[in-house]
Amino acid sequence: MTDGDPIIALDAMGGDNAPGAIVEGAVTAARQLGVRVALVGQTEAIERELARLAPRPDPITIVDAPEVIDMDEHPAQAARQKKQSSIVVGLRMLKQREADAFVSAGNTGAVMAGAIMHVGRVRGIERPSLVGLLPFAGKLTAFLDVGANADARPEYLLQWAQMAAVYMEHVWKVERPTVGLLNIGEEESKGSAVVQEAYELLEASGLNFIGNVEGRDVPLGGADVIVTDGFTGNVVVKTMEGTADLIMTELRAAITSRPWYAAAGLVLTPAFGALRKKFDYREYGAGPLLGVNGLVFIGHGRSDARAISSALRMAREAAQSGMLEAIREAAPARVVAGTPREGGDSREEVEAT
Amino acid sequence: MTDGDPIIALDAMGGDNAPGAIVEGAVTAARQLGVRVALVGQTEAIERELARLAPRPDPITIVDAPEVIDMDEHPAQAARQKKQSSIVVGLRMLKQREADAFVSAGNTGAVMAGAIMHVGRVRGIERPSLVGLLPFAGKLTAFLDVGANADARPEYLLQWAQMAAVYMEHVWKVERPTVGLLNIGEEESKGSAVVQEAYELLEASGLNFIGNVEGRDVPLGGADVIVTDGFTGNVVVKTMEGTADLIMTELRAAITSRPWYAAAGLVLTPAFGALRKKFDYREYGAGPLLGVNGLVFIGHGRSDARAISSALRMAREAAQSGMLEAIREAAPARVVAGTPREGGDSREEVEAT
Repeated sequence: MTDGDPIIALDAMGGDNAPGAIVEGAVTAARQLGVRVALVGQTEAIERELARLAPRPDPITIVDAPEVIDMDEHPAQAARQKKQSSIVVGLRMLKQREADAFVSAGNTGAVMAGAIMHVGRVRGIERPSLVGLLPFAGKLTAFLDVGANADARPEYLLQWAQMAAVYMEHVWKVERPTVGLLNIGEEESKGSAVVQEAYELLEASGLNFIGNVEGRDVPLGGADVIVTDGFTGNVVVKTMEGTADLIMTELRAAITSRPWYAAAGLVLTPAFGALRKKFDYREYGAGPLLGVNGLVFIGHGRSDARAISSALRMAREAAQSGMLEAIREAAPARVVAGTPREGGDSREEVEAT
Repeated sequence: MTDGDPIIALDAMGGDNAPGAIVEGAVTAARQLGVRVALVGQTEAIERELARLAPRPDPITIVDAPEVIDMDEHPAQAARQKKQSSIVVGLRMLKQREADAFVSAGNTGAVMAGAIMHVGRVRGIERPSLVGLLPFAGKLTAFLDVGANADARPEYLLQWAQMAAVYMEHVWKVERPTVGLLNIGEEESKGSAVVQEAYELLEASGLNFIGNVEGRDVPLGGADVIVTDGFTGNVVVKTMEGTADLIMTELRAAITSRPWYAAAGLVLTPAFGALRKKFDYREYGAGPLLGVNGLVFIGHGRSDARAISSALRMAREAAQSGMLEAIREAAPARVVAGTPREGGDSREEVEAT
């Protein structure tokens, strides 16, 4: 950790509303919560936004990164080539212990690829995994993988569940978080070969494993942690979005179908607006990228100042909580002696404990 | 086909509302649409319901089946052992050409297992697949597999897409139905190994393949046919249900949060009720079980008389349309000479054409 309060490196250039909303979120977090933020990006653009929001709060610094990775650039290629981009510069600060966490609302794939390249994995973790933080049913659920690890192996699912449980404990103070395995029935014998094997591993893991959960348990918050492969995870979050969009559209249509409905609908407009916002799972700060050897949080491209400010608070909480150390502890391979070979670009073999 | 108008065998004992709602649906279909229905089940119970709905319409007959398979019985075991159950008797009528289609709102797994055991597969089809008929976005989408074929191979996905396209053409008169492959991105190179290989097969298939579609396209009707493995399919339909349930709950909560909302909400109650019903994908008749060597339609356990009546109409349409013959034509193995060995219990090898 850096000296004193954690420093959070923030990608000032990432997201649809960058740099304006990003810098504004940083100023809010610094002013109201005292979060120490290093704004990483094009100095001139950042200065302009800061001037607009003057006076500049003390705990904000600027780290220059002249290049920008666009939202639709090829992730791995951009992360490899644009070494002066805000994403890569921010990740390298993490690697070199100049920051305690990195937050970005930029190109998700580039942050993921960049984190593996420039920060490296926790020793023993095979695949980093991105958490979607679902706030729907009056409680939070860490749903993973939403980071597109399409072909998951049973051991990946186990590791993801372990890391997400550590995250829920440390950042959200959930004691012995419940862990559910997304499946197509409640019985142990259900599901694909991979899922059946993952069931065995989870049952023997010492986690608070509650068994299989089903598709409806994801929006309804059936467990504190719900684990699945990145193919299913991606499809599920997009299905939730599509369903919510469709219902809202139909609701509007239903309300305009009769004159007396329309008047009632007008009264309810603010309630509907709040509801629509509530069902955008990405409005709630940022999801952690678990398994890289540093604290990386990825927010949605549409993040506004509020989402950024809440992501910064969450990142500080994670840095102060010892979450990363606990994940290193829980990982199956341990550094036995000599210089710790944490992270790096190469792929270590997993050593079973 | 049986002589004259198709005969539809209907499982009178299957579903939460059996036999009452089932018999009522049959009477409606017979009376209003002239559908010839063979009610399969316990004669006495059926007679009682028919008496209640007297006079009995001409095209209704009763076929006695003294046993009942409960909704929560072990599917394969029940389908094997309860030979006098309405499900097995109905399926055997199909096999013996005493009926042209079979409709059941009973134990889905037992109907599927029973159909494979007692009716057999279309020669060349490796795995029968259950279609979920999604009516959400003002058009119908055939979404499959929702029948829990958890470990799908690329060839299964191809066959399912082919059969579902035939179904949409024949029963719903959709010309050259668009086919989408459920994936985690639009690019060809996305997704699991199985999905990437299925992409190649679909592209070369001669189907009207529009490429990858994503999770949000399922509720929003992004293609006439959307194909995926039975694991993802099951998770997706349950996620849609859970999301719809949650939104309706939240909507109620939002409306009761302010007195002036409550009054407006009261006015809108009928609109909300209609909306809730619309999002239960299983209200819309029944989905075909494609790949068995007969027309089998599986309705939801909660089917009411209206759903049964609409399933019966759909089954008659399928029988008259030549859909099954077209599926046999499209299947990769052809009967070359001698007695056609269609169906049967044994597993034929696939002969590539």
